[in-house]
Amino acid sequence: MMGSLVIAGLGPGAEAMITPEVAAALDQATDVIGYIPYVARIAPRDGLRLHSSDNRVELDRARHALELATRGGRVVVVSSGDPGVFAMASAVFEAIDSGPSEWRELDIRVLPGITAMLAAAAAAGAPMGHDFCAINLSDNLKPFDLVLKRISLALEADFAMAFYNPRSKARPHQFASVLDLLQARAEPERLIIFARAVSTPKQDIHVVPLRDARPEMADMRTLVIVGSAATRQVGRFVYTPRRA
Amino acid sequence: MMGSLVIAGLGPGAEAMITPEVAAALDQATDVIGYIPYVARIAPRDGLRLHSSDNRVELDRARHALELATRGGRVVVVSSGDPGVFAMASAVFEAIDSGPSEWRELDIRVLPGITAMLAAAAAAGAPMGHDFCAINLSDNLKPFDLVLKRISLALEADFAMAFYNPRSKARPHQFASVLDLLQARAEPERLIIFARAVSTPKQDIHVVPLRDARPEMADMRTLVIVGSAATRQVGRFVYTPRRA
Repeated sequence: MMGSLVIAGLGPGAEAMITPEVAAALDQATDVIGYIPYVARIAPRDGLRLHSSDNRVELDRARHALELATRGGRVVVVSSGDPGVFAMASAVFEAIDSGPSEWRELDIRVLPGITAMLAAAAAAGAPMGHDFCAINLSDNLKPFDLVLKRISLALEADFAMAFYNPRSKARPHQFASVLDLLQARAEPERLIIFARAVSTPKQDIHVVPLRDARPEMADMRTLVIVGSAATRQVGRFVYTPRRA
Repeated sequence: MMGSLVIAGLGPGAEAMITPEVAAALDQATDVIGYIPYVARIAPRDGLRLHSSDNRVELDRARHALELATRGGRVVVVSSGDPGVFAMASAVFEAIDSGPSEWRELDIRVLPGITAMLAAAAAAGAPMGHDFCAINLSDNLKPFDLVLKRISLALEADFAMAFYNPRSKARPHQFASVLDLLQARAEPERLIIFARAVSTPKQDIHVVPLRDARPEMADMRTLVIVGSAATRQVGRFVYTPRRA
């Protein structure tokens, strides 16, 4: 008997941001599979198998989940945030695309979650309040020149921008290049938000004008938001007006 | 005594997509205020005042909410989807920016919700699986030329795109101009998704190649997603690979 596969978003960290439909899927799962720190968020219980794997093995993890479902499991693949934003949903469909035809017969659902960008924006005010873009700064899967090209075009379009995966130990220098580009092309007063560990007890929201932004203000747990030319501050909040 | 103001996202329609933190804020509210169809989603109860208002009066609604909070209410402003995405959060901060200084002293929180774009993407597969942008097609608050300029630049950047408010009775022709631009600039096979009434019993997800897209496929309840050049189909799902 074929099982089912749910690709679910756990939100950015707070229990109170997990949607009821994701909680229900987890309650009914026989198997939960995902990156180590995300599976660590799932409470163990009888009848539930937890499968953790390391970063950068997304396709292997996706295939493992599809095999478990094919053997009859009620499998939930967990991502932080939203599974469709720089997370596991695309990896699962890539695996299906190149996998055995029976995988296409599975009962598959994607359950959205609160993505880091929108939790960070809410914590800061409403910096994504008008047209915006989201860019993954990691060059694991695309050339870094394409990242810089997209940022240049986004500046020209005057989008607010959210940067996922801005900086890691393996990529310490690229975010410096991004800041160089922004500092050369945008006003020094442009607001930039460094939102770390959003919605967790360690949440830290740091707002600076672009001229004061430094590469070391970001790490792998940071979501960076660059305002549009219209983004401004009122009191402790940052927002982008609707006429922008 | 000053009250509090919460700006909360109700998600796209399904009860099961309302986060527990938003549900808790609604449970504790003395006043809920918002656009008529969103307030209609809130169950009446003793001690809760419901304040509905029409579309296009966002600043007046924001001021009303701020006044109620200043008088001691536990006020929740409700938006569909996420309050920070083309919704009430920016309007509230605009009102504070031009309002009396006491409004800056209020206890204000923004609670994120599942935005239509990500619920539509999940229902379709993972079309926003790599870099993307979100554009409000309404020209109520910006010139339409700016909309077209942003779409042109987004094509050049090869973002997947989400279009909010693509078409209304007051603006029946602009979405046709958007399709003209896309059809002139992108391949005829480019995938476009018309996602209507996402997560409700009336949900309808319609995927067509750009060559077959027609303006009347969208209305005010439709969220439109245009794939990047890499976006593809596997079975009934649409996804954008992570290498894009």
